[in-house]
Amino acid sequence: MNYVAELLAVGTELLLGDIANTDAQFISQGLSQLGITVHYHTVVGDNPQRLKEAVAVARTRANIIITTGGLGPTYDDLTKQTLAEAFGKTLLLHEPTAQRLRDYFMRNNKREVPANSMQQAMLPEGCTVLQNDWGTAPGCAFVAEGIHVVMLPGPPRECASMFTNCAIPYLRALSDATIFSRTIRIFGLGEPAVENKLKGVMETMENPTLAPYAKEGEVLLRVTARAGNQADAERMVEPVLHMVADTLGDAVYGFDVPSLEAVVLDLLKKNGVTLGAAESCTGGLFAKRFTDLPGASAVFQGSVVAYSAAIKEKVLGVPKDVLEEKGTVSEETARYLAEGARRVLGTDLAVGITGVAGPDSDEKDNPVGLVYVALAGETGTYVRRIYMGKDRNWIRTLATLHGYDMVRRYLTGKDIETVEELR
Amino acid sequence: MNYVAELLAVGTELLLGDIANTDAQFISQGLSQLGITVHYHTVVGDNPQRLKEAVAVARTRANIIITTGGLGPTYDDLTKQTLAEAFGKTLLLHEPTAQRLRDYFMRNNKREVPANSMQQAMLPEGCTVLQNDWGTAPGCAFVAEGIHVVMLPGPPRECASMFTNCAIPYLRALSDATIFSRTIRIFGLGEPAVENKLKGVMETMENPTLAPYAKEGEVLLRVTARAGNQADAERMVEPVLHMVADTLGDAVYGFDVPSLEAVVLDLLKKNGVTLGAAESCTGGLFAKRFTDLPGASAVFQGSVVAYSAAIKEKVLGVPKDVLEEKGTVSEETARYLAEGARRVLGTDLAVGITGVAGPDSDEKDNPVGLVYVALAGETGTYVRRIYMGKDRNWIRTLATLHGYDMVRRYLTGKDIETVEELR
Repeated sequence: MNYVAELLAVGTELLLGDIANTDAQFISQGLSQLGITVHYHTVVGDNPQRLKEAVAVARTRANIIITTGGLGPTYDDLTKQTLAEAFGKTLLLHEPTAQRLRDYFMRNNKREVPANSMQQAMLPEGCTVLQNDWGTAPGCAFVAEGIHVVMLPGPPRECASMFTNCAIPYLRALSDATIFSRTIRIFGLGEPAVENKLKGVMETMENPTLAPYAKEGEVLLRVTARAGNQADAERMVEPVLHMVADTLGDAVYGFDVPSLEAVVLDLLKKNGVTLGAAESCTGGLFAKRFTDLPGASAVFQGSVVAYSAAIKEKVLGVPKDVLEEKGTVSEETARYLAEGARRVLGTDLAVGITGVAGPDSDEKDNPVGLVYVALAGETGTYVRRIYMGKDRNWIRTLATLHGYDMVRRYLTGKDIETVEELR
Repeated sequence: MNYVAELLAVGTELLLGDIANTDAQFISQGLSQLGITVHYHTVVGDNPQRLKEAVAVARTRANIIITTGGLGPTYDDLTKQTLAEAFGKTLLLHEPTAQRLRDYFMRNNKREVPANSMQQAMLPEGCTVLQNDWGTAPGCAFVAEGIHVVMLPGPPRECASMFTNCAIPYLRALSDATIFSRTIRIFGLGEPAVENKLKGVMETMENPTLAPYAKEGEVLLRVTARAGNQADAERMVEPVLHMVADTLGDAVYGFDVPSLEAVVLDLLKKNGVTLGAAESCTGGLFAKRFTDLPGASAVFQGSVVAYSAAIKEKVLGVPKDVLEEKGTVSEETARYLAEGARRVLGTDLAVGITGVAGPDSDEKDNPVGLVYVALAGETGTYVRRIYMGKDRNWIRTLATLHGYDMVRRYLTGKDIETVEELR
């Protein structure tokens, strides 16, 4: 069976330009990996008549319709009603969802579920309920008249999680071509540098394909094979991984890993090593991103966000004359920050970050984008000096990644201080 | 004349999820300001048959069709040919564009224009040519059978610049209404609660309209008026702002402001008050988000991310018996964290946050989602107890927003501890 999908996003906020349709992007990527072709994306407002018309068009040109949005508790959330009606389904109260809502309201608001919230528990008869772990509105899937209808919530976090956890397994069962992908993750080389090193390889590969994409300070390479079965596809991908790892060296930090910090968390756990930080220009981002990881508390002890010079001196013990003579943005201050954090927080390793995130230069006229990242450990203190452009968010993100990368290299016995080109 | 627009994006890369349709967002914002309603966005691949079908659908439901993409020099750039054919127009060589191409190729490549590139100079007869200052492919606009067709290039920078510089003046000439919007920002009430409090008002308002949308822990209400001129539209919006502010009370934290933390930064600056924090479950997010704001360093001194109990005790002075008897997630610990941060960091105000962000319950079996947020200041220490669901990111985000909200209420003389329902 050849499946063709259409994505139907419901929400006036999209038509007003308040948000971009990132749900469609996320879902399209996933469908492409499943080998399901997408012919159209449609966006329609919270308007039942126009939604009905969009469904009428979509069912003539797709056999999978995936809707996003319009599942919430407010009067303009009409997706379920409209789709159910279009496919001759009745909405019925789904008791487990109703119970979840009752529990939720009792626990949080000490009251009954209001009528508008209870409409979230009304679902098309005979549907598969897609549980929403991040919000109160469940999604659902049903097949009618040869068309698979999948309804997901609009908020990107809820949509992505339900698509990945619920819709993909549902759709995978329909698909017959096997597509298998693995992702190589790289930090410390920019996309042009990666392309230069792999010159002539990427363009000529057809199956598997090798495609780069840039992701906030990192480069990802996706190797994708298409075959008659899973085992063949996996076998085709394997040698490409090794070829790329040999070519790019230490900059490759993992295959199919979720992030650099996740790799660092694993390494710290395996080695029984604790981590702390002292952050100036990153303002807590190093700690925040690391503690985004569930389980970080096993090794991450804490961070001192020392935004003011007084805190650098009083809490972390950076000597006053170093701050005054070398400046808060200097190799020496970075060293003292890392060593101070290691001492004050009592950790095995500590990262110290100081730099100019902008918009203005610092008191010593250091340019925006200059950052020093230090790592203090048992074997000594290591420092990277990095210059990374003018954008505040980019500077803070990249400085944070450099901190993680130094920890990774420390724990895997690689060169810690050398920085290759990033652009 | 009442104009209804449909945006038609052409590009297989959108259907594969390589990029999001940010062109549609940008153009929709502009159309909304011009008072032109958008009923649908459609995305179609580089496929002439399906593009033709999408045009056939669009012309039945819109009288302005704006296409993006498919104007370039490659074989799959088919937008002009397809749209011209659909509206019975012939493509003719546009001599000034041809000359620009000849100049461009001579200057850069020292050769004649290749045939595929020259197709960029073929434009529908009688069209308005929209010059592209960023690339070689011009856009165009024409009217046929009562439908205005505007074609813009796909690359976001080219599209945005041509839309702003060429398409807006073209469309403004068609429009006869002015649209004016203001946004009311709310923290501390969920979308259903906002709707309940404004029951009967939102649904019945027609001009101005009042529309809610949820945004990570907050609710935004947009008031939009349509009038013959700007001054009238502004006058119509004003009383609605006051009505909403009166109805929702302290939960309204601003009109047209960028974020809660931005309002807090302004208040701190105006009052000459410094801020610090002690963060457990938020792991640096409170500091990170605040220091995302350029200029935060004027008032924000720092934060101690005390992920481990040892740091809570040793760096921030939370008594060991409090940690052991009351637990790290308790009202008492939150108080000590805020007061400890205020003392150690030497700030006027300090926020302390402790809670269970999950995935597991804490050592006292407190449930995931339970958070205490404390604010210590000259007049005392205030605590909120909040229960906020199961998602780690959501818990951390909401806890952070509660911290900012308490600072806002402290500095504006409002009730600091009361929490209304958020869903």
